[in-house]
Amino acid sequence: MFFASDNTAPVAPQIMAALAAINEVQTKSYGADPMMDDVTTCLRELFAAPNAAVYLVATGTAANALSLALSTPPWGTVFCHATAHIEKDECGAPEFFTNGAKLVLVEGNHGKMTPEALRHVIASTGQGGVHSVQRGIVSLTNVTEAGTAYSAAEVKALTLVAREFGLPCHMDGARFANALVSTTTSPADMTWRAGIDVLSFGGTKNGLMGVEAVILFNPDQAWEFELRRKRAGHLMSKHRFLSAQMQAYLRGGLWLDLATRANSTASKLALGLSALPYVRFDHQSDANIIFARWPRAYHQRLHNEGAYYYLNEEERLEGAPDEMVGGRLVCSWATTHTEVENFLRIMAKP
Amino acid sequence: MFFASDNTAPVAPQIMAALAAINEVQTKSYGADPMMDDVTTCLRELFAAPNAAVYLVATGTAANALSLALSTPPWGTVFCHATAHIEKDECGAPEFFTNGAKLVLVEGNHGKMTPEALRHVIASTGQGGVHSVQRGIVSLTNVTEAGTAYSAAEVKALTLVAREFGLPCHMDGARFANALVSTTTSPADMTWRAGIDVLSFGGTKNGLMGVEAVILFNPDQAWEFELRRKRAGHLMSKHRFLSAQMQAYLRGGLWLDLATRANSTASKLALGLSALPYVRFDHQSDANIIFARWPRAYHQRLHNEGAYYYLNEEERLEGAPDEMVGGRLVCSWATTHTEVENFLRIMAKP
Amino acid sequence: MFFASDNTAPVAPQIMAALAAINEVQTKSYGADPMMDDVTTCLRELFAAPNAAVYLVATGTAANALSLALSTPPWGTVFCHATAHIEKDECGAPEFFTNGAKLVLVEGNHGKMTPEALRHVIASTGQGGVHSVQRGIVSLTNVTEAGTAYSAAEVKALTLVAREFGLPCHMDGARFANALVSTTTSPADMTWRAGIDVLSFGGTKNGLMGVEAVILFNPDQAWEFELRRKRAGHLMSKHRFLSAQMQAYLRGGLWLDLATRANSTASKLALGLSALPYVRFDHQSDANIIFARWPRAYHQRLHNEGAYYYLNEEERLEGAPDEMVGGRLVCSWATTHTEVENFLRIMAKP
Amino acid sequence: MFFASDNTAPVAPQIMAALAAINEVQTKSYGADPMMDDVTTCLRELFAAPNAAVYLVATGTAANALSLALSTPPWGTVFCHATAHIEKDECGAPEFFTNGAKLVLVEGNHGKMTPEALRHVIASTGQGGVHSVQRGIVSLTNVTEAGTAYSAAEVKALTLVAREFGLPCHMDGARFANALVSTTTSPADMTWRAGIDVLSFGGTKNGLMGVEAVILFNPDQAWEFELRRKRAGHLMSKHRFLSAQMQAYLRGGLWLDLATRANSTASKLALGLSALPYVRFDHQSDANIIFARWPRAYHQRLHNEGAYYYLNEEERLEGAPDEMVGGRLVCSWATTHTEVENFLRIMAKP
Repeated sequence: MFFASDNTAPVAPQIMAALAAINEVQTKSYGADPMMDDVTTCLRELFAAPNAAVYLVATGTAANALSLALSTPPWGTVFCHATAHIEKDECGAPEFFTNGAKLVLVEGNHGKMTPEALRHVIASTGQGGVHSVQRGIVSLTNVTEAGTAYSAAEVKALTLVAREFGLPCHMDGARFANALVSTTTSPADMTWRAGIDVLSFGGTKNGLMGVEAVILFNPDQAWEFELRRKRAGHLMSKHRFLSAQMQAYLRGGLWLDLATRANSTASKLALGLSALPYVRFDHQSDANIIFARWPRAYHQRLHNEGAYYYLNEEERLEGAPDEMVGGRLVCSWATTHTEVENFLRIMAKP
Repeated sequence: MFFASDNTAPVAPQIMAALAAINEVQTKSYGADPMMDDVTTCLRELFAAPNAAVYLVATGTAANALSLALSTPPWGTVFCHATAHIEKDECGAPEFFTNGAKLVLVEGNHGKMTPEALRHVIASTGQGGVHSVQRGIVSLTNVTEAGTAYSAAEVKALTLVAREFGLPCHMDGARFANALVSTTTSPADMTWRAGIDVLSFGGTKNGLMGVEAVILFNPDQAWEFELRRKRAGHLMSKHRFLSAQMQAYLRGGLWLDLATRANSTASKLALGLSALPYVRFDHQSDANIIFARWPRAYHQRLHNEGAYYYLNEEERLEGAPDEMVGGRLVCSWATTHTEVENFLRIMAKP
Repeated sequence: MFFASDNTAPVAPQIMAALAAINEVQTKSYGADPMMDDVTTCLRELFAAPNAAVYLVATGTAANALSLALSTPPWGTVFCHATAHIEKDECGAPEFFTNGAKLVLVEGNHGKMTPEALRHVIASTGQGGVHSVQRGIVSLTNVTEAGTAYSAAEVKALTLVAREFGLPCHMDGARFANALVSTTTSPADMTWRAGIDVLSFGGTKNGLMGVEAVILFNPDQAWEFELRRKRAGHLMSKHRFLSAQMQAYLRGGLWLDLATRANSTASKLALGLSALPYVRFDHQSDANIIFARWPRAYHQRLHNEGAYYYLNEEERLEGAPDEMVGGRLVCSWATTHTEVENFLRIMAKP
Repeated sequence: MFFASDNTAPVAPQIMAALAAINEVQTKSYGADPMMDDVTTCLRELFAAPNAAVYLVATGTAANALSLALSTPPWGTVFCHATAHIEKDECGAPEFFTNGAKLVLVEGNHGKMTPEALRHVIASTGQGGVHSVQRGIVSLTNVTEAGTAYSAAEVKALTLVAREFGLPCHMDGARFANALVSTTTSPADMTWRAGIDVLSFGGTKNGLMGVEAVILFNPDQAWEFELRRKRAGHLMSKHRFLSAQMQAYLRGGLWLDLATRANSTASKLALGLSALPYVRFDHQSDANIIFARWPRAYHQRLHNEGAYYYLNEEERLEGAPDEMVGGRLVCSWATTHTEVENFLRIMAKP
């Protein structure tokens, strides 16, 4: 019963097969492999973006930080939600890659910035002329850190605010597939048609070994991206193993199939939990992550029976048994219905 | 009637005289002048800190950013008030000099952080282990950006919180002399005895042409400071002109005399305003800055009669005459009682 | 006939098997997997360095740049050979990771710095006091970019020079296994016993998919390394796939077996070429890389028959057929004796 | 007898008078003073460059490093002479301000790059595609660090090489006035008409207290310059004191008068030395700096009689009396003919 993270899930068998297959081929290094050409073609088609530039890196932090560094100067700002991964979980990578841009936090419930809050924060930034940092880029995360998903319309409402001020927009799509499945939206509608300029297109949390794509819908800075990637040590010599993973991930819609599985087990789990009178949800569970709270005694019982997941930051397993304690449950492509049922069985025991 | 900033005031005549005098002497460059030795000796005595290292730079931004870079790594944080100069008015200099440290904002009324807010913010920083930025340094400003002054006891209450977490403390003392005069505190009591490790000791706003001292109460990083200053282009070749200014500033307590003048004209102005029923103060005026609001018609009248000062960021001179509009009035060492009286006369007219 | 790079070789079958095996296991992310514990234990034993800290990253550029950033401040220097990978092939990654340290180039034939040249360059660096960049770290590469290998005694001669000035030493061991095999030296003798403080221990060029270890013989800065790695986006979430590769690489001496294969096919190839009167060697071929030159007509013939390798930077395939043209031949663990024989057969044809 | 540096000379009396005069005026801070408008107008006229953007900073290191950061990306190079101030005397400021650009050294006798050497070095830079740092900017110094002056034709020959590769050009003109006087060239002919895009226009070494102008002949990046200046702590609040100095410096050709004085005393000194059979010149003395060598006994005698100047880096005052020892003599605007005569008298004594 592994609900700790989609990072702990195995690599999908189709991906392992692709790695094995590509290992028979000797081909050029550093991204000059034919599989990468195929990946680019495929992503351009999927996103209906024939001019997009596509690059692969091995971590989401690299994808995000490189994207942001491309789009905001050192004296610029990155507007993001207060709980964004780039703010909370990347040890300052955006600041490192941008050479010191400032993350400016935007409020909003359930992990989502509101257009009003965003407009207010942007408007009040850079008011001091040369004495102020300057407005840079808006970065939003879909699926959010709260497990909610922005609809394409919600994304557009935010990017329109950015456009009022002439700012570009980045989407951290570490769980992009889960967001699409959750909202039944097309890749293009969720991104460039909704005003997104740069996308971190995640794979690692959805069945890959360690591959994220960066998609630049405007390819003007493609060469700069390549230099920044290399300079940051993120250009893989045996790049073909990244290409092969991404190729297999896209082939036949595997990426959406895997996300569908994760979302549907999470949905089943959420449904089961919602039937229990002593469970309360912190956020609506739109995709594959559930934030909920229930009496500590159940956490202890789950723990003892081998369920593995994180309590909220400030919570502990020890303490009064009837106190409500918050936890985060993440389903991955590999989470089984049996695991969900076992979890719910333990939770339902009186 | 110049109340816009203490930056617009002239250089004090004693300072001009010192510059003229030193111009007769040929001496070594880059800080190896005998006046600098005297400055160091003098500041060590004033602060009862015989081991302190002392350096001069030409701007407050340089003094602050170099001090912070010395004390926090790129992956560290700087805890400061949301209105701090380092956050609002230095175009990201702290981020540049530290190579990307993150400023983490602490709330508190009237420009002052509260110990509780500081403790809460520090405690909730760096909780994610290697994924988080790490706790760095606490920076507080005295006189604050709101024109209030921390007492030594208030400073100590904040630095004790920092010490709970093992963090060093910086004071942005761009108006340090005004703070001392306001609180009748000794330099040592306001700084190292209250837990301050590094001080930006301002001079430019208090009658110098452009000199700030950085005082490192712990001199272990003195050589690193020298390298950082040079590398940032802040080591002056004709350093003797900085030394001479600072020497004259300290001699005979000129620095405190100048601040006393600024504080007392501001005090007179505040007292006069407080007698007017249509004036409201945003903050207590502890030193030489007043934040207050009164009906727009008076602003317009003042403006027409040549008073020069800033309205608050979001305010405008045009509009309904009886609407309350906020402004900032700054007195310098050169502000005259006549200027204050003229200002009050206009304000008092029915 | 692939002699372009050891980067183009496949992943060794034992490594692929290890990846498949580990994929059955769900374990913690970000390096908290038990395989990593085993890797650390194993490398400590191999290097007779029970306190060493060990970290994995996915690229050699990351391994080098993180190592250097740990050991030299922004105002420091990195002393290296003029042809070093960190100088020529990393797009300025050392400068990026160190926030602007300066690479200072040291001469020496055949890719090797000489102690005399190193001493001269170090001695003449930092002479200007605060105006100069300061002496930082010495970085040497083994196997060198010229295909030669430093003996442990040669390494020690260089690190002793560094010690004269109190400087630490880094070894770029992208082909460390090939160097050990070439010189029949133990890991400890080649590194810390010879004065090396930090080692980039390569795997990618020797049969791994993309894993390099950084070994800190002095673990004092281990936590700083972890923060720098994360901040640079080089901490893999599914780190277990790096661990598993490195574990299999070390198990039963596979790493040395693979390097032995590469070195021995290169040796056979060099021997064959040396028998041809129209071949001249630029450098002695100590490991798995050969730099040699022969008439262009043979290059053209090889090219036509499918041999794949790089000409020297300034050379071209088109031109006078009897002109001598330099090329670089690299053998990997996967290079076959048949490939070598075919190559030599073409070269030997009159 | 002060021949150590033009940095040790006093501030010219006209400049002191201007500082005193401006101190009577209250005006806007941060460069919004009317004197700055006048400075801009005046420099545009002097350089016949009506669109040039002009900024003031307090040090030459700041002027150079800000100029370079504006013109080359972090992954770019700065091509300069091996003895350039930016390479040897700024503690890595260019690397800091550019976030890690690489200085690539160009050879040439007597402090001057040759077009051939420059072309060779540029051509061999960036050959590795994304793996290499990219060609950035050419920076040349006039007067050079060897005391020689480039003619406008020599400058043009170098900038034409830069143009072959599409690169911009910077001139470090810390002693620009001395170069113009030496070569009887107009400001425009020496700069933009000769292919210079950005000029560090020195004042501090020629009678100012601490002011350098940066002139951007192409003003497209003017706003970026302002942000970079502020962010680096180099925007002075009491900027009017910089403006006033520069205004007085330009008024009536004072800047050229001061340089003429420095050059002519240096010329007299060089002429006197050249008449002595035991003096040898290292470089031709084109402006106000002399590099020469003579027997140590004379150095000792000069030293004893109070002459103050630097020996070459590797030389010492103690040792064999008849050994030839190199020294550097710098004349400033304030050097008197009497000082020169005294020096020569000591040198001429048998």
